Amino acid sequence: MYPWEACVRKVTPYVPGEQPFEESKIIKLNTNENPYPPSPEVMKAAECIKWKDMRLYPDYRARELVKAISLVHGVGEDMIFPGVGSDDVLSMIFMTFFGSSKPILFPDVSYSFYSVWAEVYKIPYEKVPVGEDFTINPEDYYRDNGGVVFPNPNAPTSLALEIGGVRDILEHNRDVICVVDEAYIDFGGTSALELLDEFPNLIVVRTFSKSKSLAGLRVGYAIAAPEIIKYLNDVKYSVNSYTLNTPSIEVGAAAMLSGKYYATQTEHVVLTREAAYPILAELGFETLKSSTNFLFTKHERLSGKEIYDGLRARGVYVRHFNAPRIDDYLRITIGSEYNMGFMYDVLRDIINGHDNA
Amino acid sequence: MYPWEACVRKVTPYVPGEQPFEESKIIKLNTNENPYPPSPEVMKAAECIKWKDMRLYPDYRARELVKAISLVHGVGEDMIFPGVGSDDVLSMIFMTFFGSSKPILFPDVSYSFYSVWAEVYKIPYEKVPVGEDFTINPEDYYRDNGGVVFPNPNAPTSLALEIGGVRDILEHNRDVICVVDEAYIDFGGTSALELLDEFPNLIVVRTFSKSKSLAGLRVGYAIAAPEIIKYLNDVKYSVNSYTLNTPSIEVGAAAMLSGKYYATQTEHVVLTREAAYPILAELGFETLKSSTNFLFTKHERLSGKEIYDGLRARGVYVRHFNAPRIDDYLRITIGSEYNMGFMYDVLRDIINGHDNA
Repeated sequence: MYPWEACVRKVTPYVPGEQPFEESKIIKLNTNENPYPPSPEVMKAAECIKWKDMRLYPDYRARELVKAISLVHGVGEDMIFPGVGSDDVLSMIFMTFFGSSKPILFPDVSYSFYSVWAEVYKIPYEKVPVGEDFTINPEDYYRDNGGVVFPNPNAPTSLALEIGGVRDILEHNRDVICVVDEAYIDFGGTSALELLDEFPNLIVVRTFSKSKSLAGLRVGYAIAAPEIIKYLNDVKYSVNSYTLNTPSIEVGAAAMLSGKYYATQTEHVVLTREAAYPILAELGFETLKSSTNFLFTKHERLSGKEIYDGLRARGVYVRHFNAPRIDDYLRITIGSEYNMGFMYDVLRDIINGHDNA
Repeated sequence: MYPWEACVRKVTPYVPGEQPFEESKIIKLNTNENPYPPSPEVMKAAECIKWKDMRLYPDYRARELVKAISLVHGVGEDMIFPGVGSDDVLSMIFMTFFGSSKPILFPDVSYSFYSVWAEVYKIPYEKVPVGEDFTINPEDYYRDNGGVVFPNPNAPTSLALEIGGVRDILEHNRDVICVVDEAYIDFGGTSALELLDEFPNLIVVRTFSKSKSLAGLRVGYAIAAPEIIKYLNDVKYSVNSYTLNTPSIEVGAAAMLSGKYYATQTEHVVLTREAAYPILAELGFETLKSSTNFLFTKHERLSGKEIYDGLRARGVYVRHFNAPRIDDYLRITIGSEYNMGFMYDVLRDIINGHDNA
């Protein structure tokens, strides 16, 4: 061991979903990417990028993008904090606001990055168990804490908490920062944006990686009261002033302004999702009621790991969490109809093979 | 004041150089950008980006880019840590390695972000005064500390420390992480890369923002022993797994592999730099011996602020630091020959105007 190793920040890093390198024949339903390409406006903006000007630093305020977000949501530009994906935004929020000695609260079955951030920033935290049916119970958040974070709809459960429940949590947590992580909101559920006026301690977080088909571009944002955005910017400018590169700013702005295209694509994803229920039920799966672009499902006989391995062996990647309470479940991203059909066929094979063995 | 404000991470944020929005008529010599466009290989790679595939997450290991860096430097891929500009890389280094209760050391006249990172991550630090002539004296680093960081060539002084001096500092600091920030190394000085085998505690940091004309893309990297890179990756994956977007990875790789083009452009910049000395001397400036793409200069009669304001009023942006020891100086980025000529004319006007007033 080197002497300097004593001073290293020790962490258990987050494990991202697999990104197979040979993409050719893989059916990738494991990281909740959108099966459809980005909008024509995005393609156009990409063509218009002036690569000769890439010698210049980007606008560190990302004003073109911020303006587009402000227009679409009808909130002031001083209420928007853009970042390198919603992970960057959430990471900055944890770093900026969760300096209390009291634990922050988030659901035990939730985005696995929350505890990773808490650990890297040395923030005390408590995981609040979701119900037997995986729902978030607002009353469990009626207690002293250093902040509250939860995704709505929740991942990997896919369940939305109704807006009354979100309000209930906010009403009982007025003295701390409350973060609603709305990565999947375009696929279902009601946004907490309508509660912003009433709760100056609320931060709503969004991403371009799911409904906007731009996971590869890394763009996300927070909307909150100007005081909150100012604190976030102060810390962000102290960590790395120029994070969003010029392509992200310019193409991101175009994506923000092509709502109509994305609404149609989102509808496709939702239709494919709804069509999955009877098929999966017939195969012996019990599937939670999804408000997202993925399904959280378990089989009546086969274990989650067994099905995961069977799918993987046949080139279909889904997500399996080797974690308490959910290790019987699979998280399956809604893919194109063709890919979903292929996956159903493979599932049928696996289940028949098992039953006939 | 809101109750949650008591727990906010309070910082004095870094102030980036001005990025004027109306770029049209501004001569921008204030943020050390390259006057020349990126390489033809970069343009080609930009054209080849598959924007339809932007729906997919980037490769979080950025292997295409890492492979190109590894090829060019002849070091293993496990010795490379890529990031969103060298600021991201440095920020991660501060966060990962500077957990000692002893102060880290860096020059008092240096990159102003070092103290900002130290503050945001609550790292104790001491600024080591550079000499009267602004040189770094290795003996000043012969003492107990929590880590050492310095740019070579240094900014904003533009001075290179000879490799013997770098080795001297490393020899006296074997138990802590030592970072040599080589943002400007392509314009002069000898790289510490040749010392990597000998010093397993050395990290060399590079950027694509200066000699590679890609400030707008946000790419940088560290080279160090595999143990160091592993610790960095662990923390990085705990903060934000996917930081480099797909355009950065693909275009960055192309830039790395177009060394010949960049060598020629760098030579242009160096020639323009050397041509500046007699002109500035004639105008009454005393200019430090630059090994970078900028000049650090002061006038015999006029104050730094006076000249800065005069240039700015005529649309020429340079950098002036309102800081102890250097407030008489200007930092002038080497621009195109045309822009430099324009600047000299404006300087002549300012100085004549002053002398005739």
